[in-house]
Amino acid sequence: MITGKEIHNLARRLWRINRSITGDGNRLTLDILKEICPEMKIYEVPSGTKVFDWTVPNEWNVKEAWIKDPSGNKIVDFEECNLHLVGYSIPVHKTINLKQLQNHLHSRPDLPSAIPYVTSYYNHYWGFCLSDLQRRSLCKGEYEVYVDSELKNGSLTYGEILLEGESKQEIFLSTYICHPSMANNELSGMTVTAYIAKWLASLKQRQYSYRIIFIPETIGSLTYLNKNLKKMKDNIIAGFNVSCVGDDRMYSYLPSRSGNSLADQVAKHTLKFTSPDYRTFLWNDRGSDERQYCAPGIDLPVVNMARTKSKEYPEYHTSLDDLDNVVTPTGLHGGFKMIYKAIKSIESNCYPQASVLGEPNLGSRGLYPTLGATKKIDSVHTLKNILTYSDGKTSLLEIAEKCDVFILDLLPTIKILKERNLLTIHNSPVFNFPNSINMPEAP
Amino acid sequence: MITGKEIHNLARRLWRINRSITGDGNRLTLDILKEICPEMKIYEVPSGTKVFDWTVPNEWNVKEAWIKDPSGNKIVDFEECNLHLVGYSIPVHKTINLKQLQNHLHSRPDLPSAIPYVTSYYNHYWGFCLSDLQRRSLCKGEYEVYVDSELKNGSLTYGEILLEGESKQEIFLSTYICHPSMANNELSGMTVTAYIAKWLASLKQRQYSYRIIFIPETIGSLTYLNKNLKKMKDNIIAGFNVSCVGDDRMYSYLPSRSGNSLADQVAKHTLKFTSPDYRTFLWNDRGSDERQYCAPGIDLPVVNMARTKSKEYPEYHTSLDDLDNVVTPTGLHGGFKMIYKAIKSIESNCYPQASVLGEPNLGSRGLYPTLGATKKIDSVHTLKNILTYSDGKTSLLEIAEKCDVFILDLLPTIKILKERNLLTIHNSPVFNFPNSINMPEAP
Amino acid sequence: MITGKEIHNLARRLWRINRSITGDGNRLTLDILKEICPEMKIYEVPSGTKVFDWTVPNEWNVKEAWIKDPSGNKIVDFEECNLHLVGYSIPVHKTINLKQLQNHLHSRPDLPSAIPYVTSYYNHYWGFCLSDLQRRSLCKGEYEVYVDSELKNGSLTYGEILLEGESKQEIFLSTYICHPSMANNELSGMTVTAYIAKWLASLKQRQYSYRIIFIPETIGSLTYLNKNLKKMKDNIIAGFNVSCVGDDRMYSYLPSRSGNSLADQVAKHTLKFTSPDYRTFLWNDRGSDERQYCAPGIDLPVVNMARTKSKEYPEYHTSLDDLDNVVTPTGLHGGFKMIYKAIKSIESNCYPQASVLGEPNLGSRGLYPTLGATKKIDSVHTLKNILTYSDGKTSLLEIAEKCDVFILDLLPTIKILKERNLLTIHNSPVFNFPNSINMPEAP
Repeated sequence: MITGKEIHNLARRLWRINRSITGDGNRLTLDILKEICPEMKIYEVPSGTKVFDWTVPNEWNVKEAWIKDPSGNKIVDFEECNLHLVGYSIPVHKTINLKQLQNHLHSRPDLPSAIPYVTSYYNHYWGFCLSDLQRRSLCKGEYEVYVDSELKNGSLTYGEILLEGESKQEIFLSTYICHPSMANNELSGMTVTAYIAKWLASLKQRQYSYRIIFIPETIGSLTYLNKNLKKMKDNIIAGFNVSCVGDDRMYSYLPSRSGNSLADQVAKHTLKFTSPDYRTFLWNDRGSDERQYCAPGIDLPVVNMARTKSKEYPEYHTSLDDLDNVVTPTGLHGGFKMIYKAIKSIESNCYPQASVLGEPNLGSRGLYPTLGATKKIDSVHTLKNILTYSDGKTSLLEIAEKCDVFILDLLPTIKILKERNLLTIHNSPVFNFPNSINMPEAP
Repeated sequence: MITGKEIHNLARRLWRINRSITGDGNRLTLDILKEICPEMKIYEVPSGTKVFDWTVPNEWNVKEAWIKDPSGNKIVDFEECNLHLVGYSIPVHKTINLKQLQNHLHSRPDLPSAIPYVTSYYNHYWGFCLSDLQRRSLCKGEYEVYVDSELKNGSLTYGEILLEGESKQEIFLSTYICHPSMANNELSGMTVTAYIAKWLASLKQRQYSYRIIFIPETIGSLTYLNKNLKKMKDNIIAGFNVSCVGDDRMYSYLPSRSGNSLADQVAKHTLKFTSPDYRTFLWNDRGSDERQYCAPGIDLPVVNMARTKSKEYPEYHTSLDDLDNVVTPTGLHGGFKMIYKAIKSIESNCYPQASVLGEPNLGSRGLYPTLGATKKIDSVHTLKNILTYSDGKTSLLEIAEKCDVFILDLLPTIKILKERNLLTIHNSPVFNFPNSINMPEAP
Repeated sequence: MITGKEIHNLARRLWRINRSITGDGNRLTLDILKEICPEMKIYEVPSGTKVFDWTVPNEWNVKEAWIKDPSGNKIVDFEECNLHLVGYSIPVHKTINLKQLQNHLHSRPDLPSAIPYVTSYYNHYWGFCLSDLQRRSLCKGEYEVYVDSELKNGSLTYGEILLEGESKQEIFLSTYICHPSMANNELSGMTVTAYIAKWLASLKQRQYSYRIIFIPETIGSLTYLNKNLKKMKDNIIAGFNVSCVGDDRMYSYLPSRSGNSLADQVAKHTLKFTSPDYRTFLWNDRGSDERQYCAPGIDLPVVNMARTKSKEYPEYHTSLDDLDNVVTPTGLHGGFKMIYKAIKSIESNCYPQASVLGEPNLGSRGLYPTLGATKKIDSVHTLKNILTYSDGKTSLLEIAEKCDVFILDLLPTIKILKERNLLTIHNSPVFNFPNSINMPEAP
């Protein structure tokens, strides 16, 4: 049984690692995640590799970075918080006055105690981030700035888990590993996804195959797509970009670009029955790797199911997005269950077909009170509703919508109907491969 | 001219007959209905006949049934009200104490003065129904119970009326004859249907053929389907399950399973213009023989047009569903007119096509005031609306919706336009068989 | 730069001309309009020509028409206001008493100061129109009535402007020239259309060809259709009936009969972003030449974009519909801009297709702030939205709707994306003829 505490502990362990779009922090992160799901393979893509319109950049690593005030005190230190250093800062060591320093400082006047998250991946620059409170307290004088970073030919690192199922058709999960110490908009995605992978790997039977990747955002998803596009377009029937799944505030859904894929149907169905007050965003609100997966010509059926989405909470992209006040064990467990239920809904989907013409004689099978009376029996009502919609062309997901019942709650009745030979179950409306319905065990 | 009083009198005559899914009461009922429509043929299907998942049961007949109290008084007597005996009760004659008797009694604490309607078709059992008021007054002591019923090899009885029209395509009406003394949920359906059949049989010309059946619910409709399925699937273009059409409270519509058949369109159009505050139920609210007619693989376009639907009124399935307080002459006449107008709407439906390009010169034909002025003439407005939509591909039913006028109210204008050679009328959008529009006379 | 004052001055110049469905007033009107757009060709169609269900009538011209009161004073004089004479009045000269005169008088008791507009094109008749105030003041006695009109074999006159574009596909504009001195429901249409034609003729490049006609209503549009139907059906992709485009009260849209043509999409899109409180009428509210253009079998995609539509304002079809209180320079300019923007929207429509897979590297092209931060940049947001929807199958009009931005406001961004080779532009979703996007200059 996977608990929220367990996921939260994993996030805590990964907290201080300095992740970026490349670098040793990413390798360390993946090594730790591989402990949870040993099926993971780790890949390196060399700097300079062309990926669509982009090029894999030089690898960035940092040894040390700080600012000393006119009195020689370290007032900003990468060692203390890796958000202090602008991502991909070039090396520097000099003494400058406050005015010159200000050109390299970043803070958030609207959030005076927060250290903001800033990067400069593709433009040579160095800079520091600090709280606006601290920035305002800086006095005139000479400051020593020191960045001992390295930008050199290396590689971009990502992790991939492939799990085979009965069908070649794939369910796709993607999460990113490129932000330093932030909780909801970083650690929640990779930790929840790791535990989902662990659960999936533990199943004795999977209807579908699974492709689960841990990549840096944008350049990483593009790199992965560049390498795997044909296979992905051929096989993926539903995908989820897993991000911001760790806080307690809301549940939310952001559609794929087409808006009507199986992933969209499942996401809406799952949230409607498990978190009815979930928020629906528009494709125009997108912000994460769905931008690549659903781009024209790529056209994968990828949605976002999240707790509080990026940009929708005040702590977003700052040091306030932490494991104490924003991301919690219950928040992570809620995120886990959401993805878990969506996957289970797809695994359980099928095309049932009634075996007899007209209503079957339920009484003779002990499925109906034999004494006709006026009271409505709810379970019989659901059973009869399933049968009336089981025409072999309507998916169980659609039937669940028509019955106004969560698909997973129909499974016990489906099992009974199948055992009594009242239903046959098909995996597709064209009935190519007869197959037993697969009900994944609960984690 | 068919009156509500006439229909009500027929219901009164049928009231006391002990109907069930088989038995002499059904034969007697059909014999009386055949007086109204002599075109009816009566069929017997032997006990033991397999029908889909079911078997036609033994035939049930009752001579006598009563309970005597400890003083020897008949306190419950089938002779007085046939609802007192549980349907398909097996024979019994014994003396038992009150506690033992209670296991065989049925009452409705929520409706203390009502005798409920209970059956046990497929499970050997005997029992009595009585008002909860009477049940509460029973004192301790020994009770004599007597059921002189017979359950033996016999047959299931049903009536069928086939009326030929110009087309082989059929309109289908089904009503049931299996409930004992209840008015809305029994007699209203068969009496209104009998008078609809009488009206249809009297017409000199029918566009469509008619299949009208009087059958016991469930086992009867399944038996009929089992015997006639291919013909029905080939020919029926619209069907109505006629039930609960006799009270004065509401008008209602319950869709076919597909929800978009011609029957659905006509039912909604008719009720919208004749009873705009009608209630719409969902397929999930179904309860009568539409369950069989619309089952997967049977897939007939059958809807319910009712007054107050089964289960929606407090007297449902009790002795309170009577011909005095629930079903009235005006209620029955309203039910008759509703079905009559729906059928007339289908008979009147056609595909009109404007004969001239552009608007015709209405003034030269005396159809337009020759002095152009500012006042809008409504009848001309409707006439021009019909012409503008008459493209040969839009049905008159759709045109009526676009004009926001009841289809039957368009017929006088259609007649004028046809006489002036401004419209040609087709029976289908593919123009296979030119035909005059048929306007059934009013009853 | 075309101003409202300029259009209003043209209307003022055309005010006093006695227009009808035929006659010298129409020729004079067209001659003046031809000064604005010399591309106009003027056609004459002889009386007696059969056009669909109609016949071009005799030509009507008037020299003089008046009523003298018992004292010999001219109290009603065509010379003063051409609305005083019923259109197509036959010649008459006699002296009659007041009672006999009343049979030939028309007034509006509900608008006592207005002279109504009345015609009798196809019925031999003579009559006068006057204010109800004046009519009530008439005293008993003998009145001399004089109509010196001529109804003889002649012709129906119309103007046509054809402007060639890069494509043979046409945008169609129709306006009518058959009402005498009325402003919104006559002069606004022809004057705005003339200036639209002038603007279109001045363009160096037009994506589409233009067919712009000035015809009498009904008989004129039918005559034109009769002559040009095949070409029109082959080429017209969007059409606008231009009428009532000169007052300041509302903006409105009346759909084509199909309701979903390109013209409908453009009209709704344009009004939604330029006059969000515009009114939508129904096809059942139609009243002008769209009746012919959208008739069954003609089926052209013609909509109405109007200011206050015919029949929707109190002065309609009376002398109160004037150039002082109803139609104004600002009203006309608003009408002009509405049609201008709709046309420009069609000219700008195209099928953009993203040139790279996945999101392009905007930073490397200077299109993105290189320092990733938390602030949302709106112009970048729109740029990315355009790219994400540019799949080659979605029109720019649809993309504009998805972005919730007026199509013309997307053009600067489209231009940038095209210049940076991030988009290719197609004129149709099947990519037959590559072409540069055409952005007509502002007038």
